[in-house]
Amino acid sequence: MDSEDMRENQVIGKSHLRVDGWEKVLGRGIYTKDLGIYDPLYCSLKQSEHAHAEIIEIDTTEARAIKGVVGIFTADDITGINNVGVINLDQPVMADDRVRHYGDVVAIAVAETKELADQAANMIKVNYKPLPGVFDPVEALKKDSPLVHPDGKYGNKGNLMSLMEYQRGDFQKAFEEADVIIENVYRPGYQEHAFIETEGCIALSHGEKITIYGSLQCPFYVRDAVANALGLKRSNVRVIQVGVGGAFGGKEDVPSEVATRAALASYLTGRPVINIRTREESISIHTKRHPMVIRHKIGAKKDGTLVAADVDIISDQGAYCSVGKYVQKRAVVHACGPYVIPNSRVISRFVYTNNILTGAFRGFGTPQVAMAVEEQMDELANALDMDPLTLRTKNMLRKNDLTPKGQLLDNCGDGLENCILSASKKSEWKLKRHDFNRFNEKMNKKDQSEIKPGENIRKGIGMSTIMYGVALGDSAPDMATATCQIAEDGSVIITTGGVEMGQGAKTVLSQIAAQEVGVPLHYVNILDADTSIVQNSGPSVASRVTPVIGEATRRAAYKAVRQVRKLAMEKFGYDYDYGEEEFEDGENEEMDVKKHIYPAVIDGEPHIVDRASGKKLRFKDLVQECYFNTLKLIGLGYSRPPTLLEDGSYRDYYTYSFACHIAEVEVDMDTGVVDVKKITAANDVGRALNPMSVEGQIEGGAVQGMGYAIMEGLVQDNGKILNPSFTDYLIPTALDAPELIPLIIEERDDFGPYGAKGIGEPSLIPTPGAVLNAVGHAIGKPIRMTPASPENVWKVINDRI
Amino acid sequence: MDSEDMRENQVIGKSHLRVDGWEKVLGRGIYTKDLGIYDPLYCSLKQSEHAHAEIIEIDTTEARAIKGVVGIFTADDITGINNVGVINLDQPVMADDRVRHYGDVVAIAVAETKELADQAANMIKVNYKPLPGVFDPVEALKKDSPLVHPDGKYGNKGNLMSLMEYQRGDFQKAFEEADVIIENVYRPGYQEHAFIETEGCIALSHGEKITIYGSLQCPFYVRDAVANALGLKRSNVRVIQVGVGGAFGGKEDVPSEVATRAALASYLTGRPVINIRTREESISIHTKRHPMVIRHKIGAKKDGTLVAADVDIISDQGAYCSVGKYVQKRAVVHACGPYVIPNSRVISRFVYTNNILTGAFRGFGTPQVAMAVEEQMDELANALDMDPLTLRTKNMLRKNDLTPKGQLLDNCGDGLENCILSASKKSEWKLKRHDFNRFNEKMNKKDQSEIKPGENIRKGIGMSTIMYGVALGDSAPDMATATCQIAEDGSVIITTGGVEMGQGAKTVLSQIAAQEVGVPLHYVNILDADTSIVQNSGPSVASRVTPVIGEATRRAAYKAVRQVRKLAMEKFGYDYDYGEEEFEDGENEEMDVKKHIYPAVIDGEPHIVDRASGKKLRFKDLVQECYFNTLKLIGLGYSRPPTLLEDGSYRDYYTYSFACHIAEVEVDMDTGVVDVKKITAANDVGRALNPMSVEGQIEGGAVQGMGYAIMEGLVQDNGKILNPSFTDYLIPTALDAPELIPLIIEERDDFGPYGAKGIGEPSLIPTPGAVLNAVGHAIGKPIRMTPASPENVWKVINDRI
Repeated sequence: MDSEDMRENQVIGKSHLRVDGWEKVLGRGIYTKDLGIYDPLYCSLKQSEHAHAEIIEIDTTEARAIKGVVGIFTADDITGINNVGVINLDQPVMADDRVRHYGDVVAIAVAETKELADQAANMIKVNYKPLPGVFDPVEALKKDSPLVHPDGKYGNKGNLMSLMEYQRGDFQKAFEEADVIIENVYRPGYQEHAFIETEGCIALSHGEKITIYGSLQCPFYVRDAVANALGLKRSNVRVIQVGVGGAFGGKEDVPSEVATRAALASYLTGRPVINIRTREESISIHTKRHPMVIRHKIGAKKDGTLVAADVDIISDQGAYCSVGKYVQKRAVVHACGPYVIPNSRVISRFVYTNNILTGAFRGFGTPQVAMAVEEQMDELANALDMDPLTLRTKNMLRKNDLTPKGQLLDNCGDGLENCILSASKKSEWKLKRHDFNRFNEKMNKKDQSEIKPGENIRKGIGMSTIMYGVALGDSAPDMATATCQIAEDGSVIITTGGVEMGQGAKTVLSQIAAQEVGVPLHYVNILDADTSIVQNSGPSVASRVTPVIGEATRRAAYKAVRQVRKLAMEKFGYDYDYGEEEFEDGENEEMDVKKHIYPAVIDGEPHIVDRASGKKLRFKDLVQECYFNTLKLIGLGYSRPPTLLEDGSYRDYYTYSFACHIAEVEVDMDTGVVDVKKITAANDVGRALNPMSVEGQIEGGAVQGMGYAIMEGLVQDNGKILNPSFTDYLIPTALDAPELIPLIIEERDDFGPYGAKGIGEPSLIPTPGAVLNAVGHAIGKPIRMTPASPENVWKVINDRI
Repeated sequence: MDSEDMRENQVIGKSHLRVDGWEKVLGRGIYTKDLGIYDPLYCSLKQSEHAHAEIIEIDTTEARAIKGVVGIFTADDITGINNVGVINLDQPVMADDRVRHYGDVVAIAVAETKELADQAANMIKVNYKPLPGVFDPVEALKKDSPLVHPDGKYGNKGNLMSLMEYQRGDFQKAFEEADVIIENVYRPGYQEHAFIETEGCIALSHGEKITIYGSLQCPFYVRDAVANALGLKRSNVRVIQVGVGGAFGGKEDVPSEVATRAALASYLTGRPVINIRTREESISIHTKRHPMVIRHKIGAKKDGTLVAADVDIISDQGAYCSVGKYVQKRAVVHACGPYVIPNSRVISRFVYTNNILTGAFRGFGTPQVAMAVEEQMDELANALDMDPLTLRTKNMLRKNDLTPKGQLLDNCGDGLENCILSASKKSEWKLKRHDFNRFNEKMNKKDQSEIKPGENIRKGIGMSTIMYGVALGDSAPDMATATCQIAEDGSVIITTGGVEMGQGAKTVLSQIAAQEVGVPLHYVNILDADTSIVQNSGPSVASRVTPVIGEATRRAAYKAVRQVRKLAMEKFGYDYDYGEEEFEDGENEEMDVKKHIYPAVIDGEPHIVDRASGKKLRFKDLVQECYFNTLKLIGLGYSRPPTLLEDGSYRDYYTYSFACHIAEVEVDMDTGVVDVKKITAANDVGRALNPMSVEGQIEGGAVQGMGYAIMEGLVQDNGKILNPSFTDYLIPTALDAPELIPLIIEERDDFGPYGAKGIGEPSLIPTPGAVLNAVGHAIGKPIRMTPASPENVWKVINDRI
């Protein structure tokens, strides 16, 4: 037997092209708009014309009179509960007595064509009584501020939607004993998700049953929202995910709005209804990254040892809670960075205003606080005259340390240390820091008037290190289900509740199944998420798809293949007692079996091989024999990350990912233009199941983080977004992307499949801090806001801020 | 607490309206033709113009030239294997070198409209070299007969497709010792399924993946056929059942043909393809009930004790095997009826001809042999001057008897005896037999010339008793998978591999889930069968849906609700050890739990009630707490009927259903018209999960059986069907239906859910024999053929046959 084609089938840990890659490259992917629907109706929105107003009357007479208009529906037509809020029940499907922001929808028009629906929506006349609005969270907390939700029935006190805080140790005393204290205010801004595909859903009703197809991250959120809004049983609502052209959190709870409106229209008309947002609607309605005002104070000893932190966060929630409380929890847990700080207090206030909503966005409140604490670390290093790298390695979290909030890191290895060492080495941190300092000194000494336009640059290198709690943590129940079926030809079908939204979920979940079953990757077909075929597996957010849904998939695959392995063992003559019961987690048994046999792909076909004799059996033949013997070749996998520590205390998050990003920039001192030249990005992913895919995530995350740091600025005027287009809201293009050096660190986790942790968000979170620290290094002054746009950087350089 | 609304939730064993009833009644059911498909192509068939011919050339030039024709595809275009045969690989997707019957398809035309496709199909020119055909199975067995499959590669010897036989005891010696021997030849004919909806499929391809929607009984057959024909992995083919407007076996393997052609066209064009047969195509292509020539010989002692049987069956298979070998197995096992006969031989030959194909049809070969043996019993009774009822009760199978073929009836109770007693009592058999004899004697004595037209009638009453092996038996692997998910509001979603085809499967499977979970029926939503979400669960045939798929559903539901019951037990203060493992079959445990708690519906809402205290907990609240605690609320159920007896021998079938039908007729001696006045039909169903639905099955089966007995005759001329329409092929209408008295007998079975056995086929099987015996009783001569049409009855009356 040739050792070349006789090898153990190893699918994970290797780079694979995406299983859905060809269709993306060839333009053949099916997105909501591509779903050919027979005889549909189209839905258009009548958005609010005020940031805050009472609705006196809605006149739909003229709109209804248009030929081809099938219905105009308002809050009065809702057959269930007029709410799409996930946490607070504060957000209506359609505005009832009042509008609270421009993104509120007062009515929908449903017609035979999109043009007619638009025309009808325009002809709906709403008589408002305008109310004073509140557009600044700090102002909103003041006593006489107009109230967004005056009744306080969501637990809010005035406009204070939620207060969350913790204290650990005696932080006041610790500050008294500190040698150096750094205190500053940071103002990270909004960020728009800027997914390629706008939000869209199609609803098909059949009597009391309804099916939703759509571009969404959280099929179960949508199921529950539609069931509630229509007053149907959840079992009668089926949500099937279609290709998702980007999401980044912006399709977490937002599709519930889109779907409930389509569903209502379909339910009331009995026709399929297409509801897809225009780009302008998308930007002007959907939730954004939370802007924050962060007062951040840290204290350290002369040697750099951190002793205390005190952080005060105020954030603009907009008119409705969305998933704001989960974002707030993350901001609080991560506010003091990935450092050993024995004494800390974090207080956060998320505030209702009449601005655009804020909600889920890749990083979930962490990029903002990471930027603040990482800039603080650089200022502390400056104050102590230490290298920022030295200061960080001195204080970084290691295995069995306690996080600032006090959670024991019992399962994280030394991922952070490895990230910092790897990134700093690869980027030649020390050398560059030194060189850039000399370059900048030289430039500063030049006669500025003699420097040609475009050549008055300064160079900077900055770093940022983070921790990031993987999955939902103690905010919400976290579990997943998957099934794996082995067909008679040995090919494999996977169902999960997880969503492919461009991040590569289908590929990595297919790899897990292929690895566990012992077949090549192309043997696996993974279905789109469908709420009716697996139990509520939670949202596809929080970097939880690979570890949590991946682990459910692994368990399903393990169970599905068990009878095949058993048959192979018998055929090879092993007398092995599998017992009668199904194992929930059969690792030990499996390892024992693998002492004797292993899966291998020989001449392109999967086999099972006997280690002792080298004899091989075709996997397909074994499967067919199992079928003939009526054996079970389907597995149901269930996973839930550990929620408790050994001492019985709750984990904020079951585990943490770590990262260290180092950015290099050049800043034009005349124009304020920041040119990010290079980002060296080291991320601890536990285990890189598909290294190429992990690198892709790191690259994408770092560029999106860079966009947040230097380009992306949402302009609002009393709650009205003035730049709802990509002409006016700038995001990085491929040409703006820096040289990117992704570095994969693998400190295997105890829970996730093969040790994997999440990477979706930790790829973005450190970048803004690293870029801003680099800019600060270049211009010699900190930039305590986003975006570090030319205007803002110029103002800082010239002390106009 | 009111005892009225506080009761144990009992869903099974009660009559419920069909869960899909409203949509049928209101005309809102979605069938293949109703599936709105966007931008489809239509497929038309070019059928063979000969019963037997070589194909010299296919000229598609003119057809291709028509504007709007997208493709003409022949066998040459098939990307995989040109076969749709389930057992023998003898049936091509499209005819290759030769055609073997008029139903062979030579090419398909695919166009933008059905009209264009039809036009194109008509313009395909095929140059044939006609071959001599063979149209009689007895002739076909002769040495010099033209051969349908000359190469013999399907194990056939000449035209003998399959020889199957068994011997038990010394039947020759037993005949020698018999006091009376009855030997006759019976000729049951073809039967057309006459489903309301013709066969149809829609194929949607996406790269290497393809989805089939269609009117079908056996989604996994279709999956495998399409995968084979296209050369795709099975995991890449997904088959989803749509509403099925009747099937009766005619949509078992037949849809594989329909689907592979649609799939091929979709795969090659990249467009959705609709392939729906016209009624003429349907009748002239799809498999029919096997016509048989049965030489049947039985011997008995003077006292009526049966001692021997010798049966020789020849059947016309048509050009391809279809599921003929399974039909043959059933014919052989059931050829000697439900009697204790210690010595028997059955020999059967299924023969290739150039006639229409024969295959699966409700009863699967059993109605034909049952008709023969039941007429034999009446002739034997006549010869012995015994009442046919007495003869049957003397010889009928009881618990722990051996079937004629020798299988121990270890789990069937005394179902047959109860059927016979119940039907004979309810029909007043003895009284009527006596009265009709007197009436007929009186009529015979009249001067025939004085009787007015229409009044020259004779009355008859006849009975037929049967056994019927439930499910697939040892012919094929028999297993099923189902999942049950409990959503957060307590509503339930069921997935299975079983098909609703009008028989009420969705209702009974929903009842099982509702019963097991403990919720009202309307809480359950059962999805259409979908090959990608459950393991191959076999075909929906052989009366196996309720027992086999039902049992998988019950187990899934049991597992899904386990954590809810556990939580309720905890809350009621019981200290109960469930252990860590999942039970495959937790009956004992469950019964133990039910000592303490029970499910009840109170004010319309499901609860769990503590027996001891009467305290109650809302089911919904318990479910939500389970979710909050991340507990598993989904179950995967797996079932497989027992295949072995205690002594290790194979069961022909794991259990048997029994029935006794008694028919009353009036025959017009001048015209030969038979008027079936009444059928009393007692069927042992193990347990009637939905009595109304069981009664519906009995009524439908009996009427279809009556149609076979007296009306339905397919006319063929050298393999060409001359009556492919319901104008010329007559089936019973509502006006033809007799008074029908369904009687449910419940001898609980060990395996099926709550003791249920199958009813789909045993409802039809006894009727033809009962009707023909009644006709024989009326006219005083046996009718040994179907149909007992006016022409045929008149001929028998007047000794012209």
